[in-house]
Parts: sequence; C-alpha cells; structure tokens
Amino acid sequence: MRYELYYWPSIQGRGEFVRLALEDAGADYTDIARKPKGMAAMMRLMESRAIGQPPFAPPFLKSGKLVIAQTANILLYLAPRLDLVPMNEAGRVWAHQLQLTIADWVVEAHDTHHPISSGLYYDEQKAAAKRRAADFTANRIPKYLGYFDQILKRNVKGSEFLVGRNVSYVDLSLFQIIEGLRYAFPRAMARLEPKHPRATALRDRVAVRPQLAAYLSSERRIPFNQEGIFRHYPELDG
Amino acid sequence: MRYELYYWPSIQGRGEFVRLALEDAGADYTDIARKPKGMAAMMRLMESRAIGQPPFAPPFLKSGKLVIAQTANILLYLAPRLDLVPMNEAGRVWAHQLQLTIADWVVEAHDTHHPISSGLYYDEQKAAAKRRAADFTANRIPKYLGYFDQILKRNVKGSEFLVGRNVSYVDLSLFQIIEGLRYAFPRAMARLEPKHPRATALRDRVAVRPQLAAYLSSERRIPFNQEGIFRHYPELDG
Repeated sequence: MRYELYYWPSIQGRGEFVRLALEDAGADYTDIARKPKGMAAMMRLMESRAIGQPPFAPPFLKSGKLVIAQTANILLYLAPRLDLVPMNEAGRVWAHQLQLTIADWVVEAHDTHHPISSGLYYDEQKAAAKRRAADFTANRIPKYLGYFDQILKRNVKGSEFLVGRNVSYVDLSLFQIIEGLRYAFPRAMARLEPKHPRATALRDRVAVRPQLAAYLSSERRIPFNQEGIFRHYPELDG
Repeated sequence: MRYELYYWPSIQGRGEFVRLALEDAGADYTDIARKPKGMAAMMRLMESRAIGQPPFAPPFLKSGKLVIAQTANILLYLAPRLDLVPMNEAGRVWAHQLQLTIADWVVEAHDTHHPISSGLYYDEQKAAAKRRAADFTANRIPKYLGYFDQILKRNVKGSEFLVGRNVSYVDLSLFQIIEGLRYAFPRAMARLEPKHPRATALRDRVAVRPQLAAYLSSERRIPFNQEGIFRHYPELDG
C-alpha cells in the first residue's frame, strides 16, 4: 500500500505526527507537497468542487480511494495497518483518547503565539501572547506533562510505553510534542522536565528507535522554524 | 446496555454532544453527576490513583469496564452501538473527521471569552476577548459554516444529512453548535445563517426529531448559561 500524505511542505506542523508514524513503521509513502508541483496538486485537491468529502485543512492522507483528514483521525486509521496500536477495541479507544488529549495540547501550544487570530501577525498580538504563554508554561504544560507521566506510571501491562505492552503511535506523538516544546520553551522545559521523568525517558526511548533515528537525522525531517506550531520567541519563555 | 455519562452537572458543555446522541437513540443511560452524590462520585473517579486509564477531563463514559474520555472518542465508540453512523469503515472515518472539525470549532467558540486562560475570569481578559471574538464572528464562523454547508451540498448519497443516507451523530453535533452560537452570538448568526441555508435547514430537521424534541423540551436539558462553552456577552457579538 502506497500512502500519499498532503501537508504544508515547509513546516513540521500537524503533519509531523503522521510522518513519525509512517517513518517508524517504514511505510511506503510520498510526502506529496514536497515533490515538484506537489504543492499545486495539494491546492487543487483542496479546492476541487468535484470531491465529495473535502478536508477542512491539511494534513490529509490518500489511501486508495479514501481521503482522510484530521491528524488524530489519520492516525486512528493508519495505526492498525502500521502495527502501532493494540488490536483490541479497548486498546484502540484508549490510544485515541490519549492522542486527542495531545491534539488539545498542540492547539494550546499554537495559541501561545497566536491567541487572538491566525490571520494576524505575531507582533499584532504580542501582548496577549505573553499573557497566554505565561499561563501555558506555568499551568498547562505541567498539567499535561503530569498527566502523561501518570499514565506511564500506571500502565496496566507494566510496560514503559503509554498504551499496552508495545510502542504505539501515541508514544511517537508524545515524543513530538516534547521536542516541539523544547524548541519553543527551552527554559520552561528545562525546569519542568525533571519533575516528570517518565515522560522524558519515553521521549529518549522513542528517539533511538532505529527507523525513527534514521528519519530524524535525514533531510526528510524539516527543522523546527518560526512558521510552525512550535515557535521560539524568548519573550514567551518566561 | 446501561451507559454512565460523567460530566459537570450545571452546563451543557462538551457533555451535551454525547447527551444528544444518547437521547436521540433512546439509549439507557444515567447522567451521573446530576444524581444525588453523583458529583462526589465523578470527582472520586477522576482523582482515584487506582484507575489505570484515567480521563484527562470530563466528559467520560462508563460502558461495562471501559472508561472512555474525549467527546469525539466517546461518540466514535457509541455511534455504531446507537445506529448513528454508517456501518462501513469509510463512512465512520468520514463522520469522525467531521466531528473532529466540530471539536476544533468548539474550542474556538470557548476561547472567544477565555483567550488568555481558563484560570482567569472573563473580566481579566475582556480586551483580548473582544479582539478574538471579532475575528471569530468575522472569519471563523463563516469558514466553518461554509464548510458544513458545502458538505451538505456534496453528499454523495444525495441525502439531506452530512454523512451517508441517514442521520448520524455528526448531524446532532452540528445542531448543537448552531444552537450554542445562536445563544452566544445572536447578531452574528442572524447575519451569517442566511448565507448558509443548508446548515440551518439541517439544524431545523434535527430539532424536530421526536426523541430529540422530547429531550429538548424536558428538564433533562440544561439551559444555556454563562458558565458553559457558549456564553452571551453582547460586547463580543459585534
């Protein structure tokens, strides 16, 4: 099965959560918008009136005739095919629940630099951004990190992963958000991570998975930058 | 099957999206926190260290031994059991994609009155709220309403519902967000709805479904109020 991933070609963004799953599994996929004329193909697909089930926004995945959007939904679809989630319904529902909590966390990370509108520049909402980021680093990161640390502690299978006995796509996504937060808020994360050692240890275990490590050091991985979800503005990193 | 729904007892909030599905299907369920001592039971469950898979936040649903959180995840689980989604995978993936888009819209609706922090009072973030709400009513509501209007127009089965031939939980959720936005932003919605007649017509078709109409006029339905996701501050309704 060859998958086609459609996402903005210059940022990790939400697409990265899908890329990590595809890469870790060694799946056969094309990152369409990063190919020549790929961006035009993506825009054509998004704007076509002929598509019965159009995505609201990238990322979306083509799998055969299906066009699937919403990051967590793409992962819900892919994970059993990539062997990145338990086979039973209870395990899949639990994994998806955690993924949706990560998705909420991602929205909040984005809104630290765009608390008023995505249609305005950062400089036009900097005062509000400072207040929102102060709350995010003081209250929200600790709440989310503490939650995932607890989940790792309580894993009923006694494993070192979030869901069941083996690695799942949710582990890859927790790795990604920790990476992103380290880029955006290095001071806050340096202070907070030692209080949540299980989450940090999971990040480290994911980083050395062979397929993933190969991806992370390749040119396929777009560096973090100031256009993505995670942006480093020192004045927001209290 | 008796379901137990756990959610804050004084607001519609995110729990309402689950209630509407349970009510429309005539499911056997208990709204735990609205029963005597129910709130204490909910807090006990949330704070218990004995639970291996704790929810991050309400709403959550108990179904047998499963405890399922995240609104869209609860609906993903319930819908096939309540006959509120097509049986095939493609239909379910599509329905969930739309539901996650509604979930994004709900976050944005909430953040109009709390753009800085949920831990601060509205009055402490009123200036930012005015800016965010102005963007929400000028740009975001039209974008989302326009999207769902298109989905109704393009339904490949030619039906008057969002997904496939029959009503689905996504139709109930679109009803709910339109209701909420009418409460919060009556002026904006009066201006915008005529431009998106299919979405409004769907809202009207859902409202007269017999089980749902009975629920809506019952005491089980909590009125909209100033504690929920949708709040009416005239100064935010430009």
